[in-house]
Amino acid sequence: MNALQLAEQLVKRSEVAEGTRKIVLLVMDGVGDIRHPDNGFRTPLEVAQTPNLDRLAARSALGRIIPVDYGITPGSGPAHLGLFGYDPREVEIGRGVLEVVGMDMPLKPGDVAARANFCTVRDGVVTDRRAGRPATEVSAEKVKLLQRAVPRIDDVELVIRAGKGHRFGVVFRGPGLVGDVSDTDPHEDGEPVRKAAPGSEGARKTAEVVNAFVRQAAEALGGKEPINAVLTRGVSSRPDIPGLAERFGLRCGAIATYPMYRGLASLVGMDLLETGQSVEEEFQCCLDNWEGYDFFFIHVKPTDEAGEDGAHERKVAAIEAVDPHVPTLLEAGPEVLAVTGDHSTPCPMKLHSWHPVPLLLHSPRCGADGRLRFTEADCNVGSLGIFRAMYLFPLMLANAGLLDKYGA
Amino acid sequence: MNALQLAEQLVKRSEVAEGTRKIVLLVMDGVGDIRHPDNGFRTPLEVAQTPNLDRLAARSALGRIIPVDYGITPGSGPAHLGLFGYDPREVEIGRGVLEVVGMDMPLKPGDVAARANFCTVRDGVVTDRRAGRPATEVSAEKVKLLQRAVPRIDDVELVIRAGKGHRFGVVFRGPGLVGDVSDTDPHEDGEPVRKAAPGSEGARKTAEVVNAFVRQAAEALGGKEPINAVLTRGVSSRPDIPGLAERFGLRCGAIATYPMYRGLASLVGMDLLETGQSVEEEFQCCLDNWEGYDFFFIHVKPTDEAGEDGAHERKVAAIEAVDPHVPTLLEAGPEVLAVTGDHSTPCPMKLHSWHPVPLLLHSPRCGADGRLRFTEADCNVGSLGIFRAMYLFPLMLANAGLLDKYGA
Repeated sequence: MNALQLAEQLVKRSEVAEGTRKIVLLVMDGVGDIRHPDNGFRTPLEVAQTPNLDRLAARSALGRIIPVDYGITPGSGPAHLGLFGYDPREVEIGRGVLEVVGMDMPLKPGDVAARANFCTVRDGVVTDRRAGRPATEVSAEKVKLLQRAVPRIDDVELVIRAGKGHRFGVVFRGPGLVGDVSDTDPHEDGEPVRKAAPGSEGARKTAEVVNAFVRQAAEALGGKEPINAVLTRGVSSRPDIPGLAERFGLRCGAIATYPMYRGLASLVGMDLLETGQSVEEEFQCCLDNWEGYDFFFIHVKPTDEAGEDGAHERKVAAIEAVDPHVPTLLEAGPEVLAVTGDHSTPCPMKLHSWHPVPLLLHSPRCGADGRLRFTEADCNVGSLGIFRAMYLFPLMLANAGLLDKYGA
Repeated sequence: MNALQLAEQLVKRSEVAEGTRKIVLLVMDGVGDIRHPDNGFRTPLEVAQTPNLDRLAARSALGRIIPVDYGITPGSGPAHLGLFGYDPREVEIGRGVLEVVGMDMPLKPGDVAARANFCTVRDGVVTDRRAGRPATEVSAEKVKLLQRAVPRIDDVELVIRAGKGHRFGVVFRGPGLVGDVSDTDPHEDGEPVRKAAPGSEGARKTAEVVNAFVRQAAEALGGKEPINAVLTRGVSSRPDIPGLAERFGLRCGAIATYPMYRGLASLVGMDLLETGQSVEEEFQCCLDNWEGYDFFFIHVKPTDEAGEDGAHERKVAAIEAVDPHVPTLLEAGPEVLAVTGDHSTPCPMKLHSWHPVPLLLHSPRCGADGRLRFTEADCNVGSLGIFRAMYLFPLMLANAGLLDKYGA
């Protein structure tokens, strides 16, 4: 029984239901960084001018969160699951699921999802796994054709949606599906299309459905090259997890501009709020929806993009673009504001990393660590210590005054 | 296998048996606090004049301990279990058990305990759950009557002891009892006395015994209002845990003025040492019993009381009252002195809280963090880090030189 399970038992559901104490989780994607010769031994958070976050830091509790576990670099899926109060070592999000939620395709419990793409097949052999890289519009027409030709296979409904270029997503919806099925994609040209094989007894039906889809899709496309067959990868089940409303009674709203983060939020039962693309519009969206929710997840993407590009100055600017909105948010009167990232994306690495992420936790009950800035080094010596990201959730609930005492 | 289980295997029993290396665990109940506008952003530990603790802090290892888990606010039971080296997430102490140990009623393995109270029943309905709030002396007479009238039910012995006002405690002692039984207290006036129902198959006999007690007690009291029936709540088994002597070979003495803490100590097999009520007398008690024990638990209550009352200055004074006794204690030559609390009780909150508790650990092997004070902020940056309270126990043993190496 860990803190998350205890919190599920101890949460004051009637007080949550009053909806008066709001929690805001502000995620600057990939915000954590490392001091390095390339950046003159100053991280973007250290270089950035952040007067508002700094002022808040002094009156907040600081710490650093380990996204998954020591030395483990997370993808966006596990990293966000941790922030949402799930153990990312236990809940797995398959590639297919991540792909389709990233295409704004809603998933229901029991659904199985696949990444798919068009390819060229000649004499039973894949000659081009990307079908000559068709334009997105061309591909979209073929997807419409597929959806009309293969709307269902026996009792399984298919939802097919176009992605970029040759890519598309497929959702299989019906009884008895288990997303434990091998790829039909041979992963190199010159090989035949593979048969989807079940990884376990329960996945037999799913493998048959996937194979039927690949066969019927090729028939529907006709033989003409380059787009005359399809391949599937990463077939996986929607994770069977209770949502945050069920676990804690919280009405959660997600504010994110990228489909993947919206999709991850929807997997834990958050409502997806309509927002413009800019950081300013995301904060405004939070204020506009203030009364309707208990918990807001605000996702800011540019910090991560800059990190992936190794663009130190752009990452600095992305942090500075967030800072002015902090006071506006505080004026709305959240009981708890947590500012952190889902993982670090150090510019010198141009990649996600395992480094613990700086965390600032502000509430009337948080204490005041008295640090003068919100940086990696300040967070190292905060009162929250360095701990696994999934425990941020019970800490936010405690700081909101929403957890009962444990034991007498 | 965690540190506690490893420590049980690695403890040097023969060297413990020599009894030359004493460990003292000094618990200032609720000592941890938070900086807050209400206290001018200075915690009681920061405000208090503690020259002795400060001098010791520089030559000690500092850290902060999380009583149960992240964000979880503990009652006194779980909080002390952690300090005594038990995982409070796994060992549960029922309400009835806590109540009766808090009334200085000894519990043996297999015992089941209940909180109970006198009430008024008319025409089968509880008209006053507190029987008109009788004086403690009146109630005590009725308890004597009950003990004479219902000394046993079949093969189950009953021990009944008066508490304050309408309250009393009942211990059921006999074979096959399981404290998983619902309350006979309806929890509101105007309802009939409920039947105790077993929560599991094994608790059937216990439910029958509790129902028989409620019935026989009402008969013994006669029909005359206001005290003509009894109600039971929180029926629970004494936790089935090995004591500290069994686990580590330690002879443990508890010095505490409040029955609840004495009771908690007795649950883990500590001897309850006779002490006066003042902090000075508690320290003297430790010195007086120096040769007879390997491990001393000294419990100081006033820090928590001040915290619960929101009395910042009183909490400061309670801390300052402890400080002069530290050198006296050190002169006795303990191998290890740990100074901490069971949880935080921040004055601005007037409640127990989840905030990690400052910890000072002193021994010839502890290192010297060189911090100038014993405060929350100093403990944030100590060499022990921020960790779960139950791991303090193996750390104390290690610092006493009482743990063998693990592996070759």
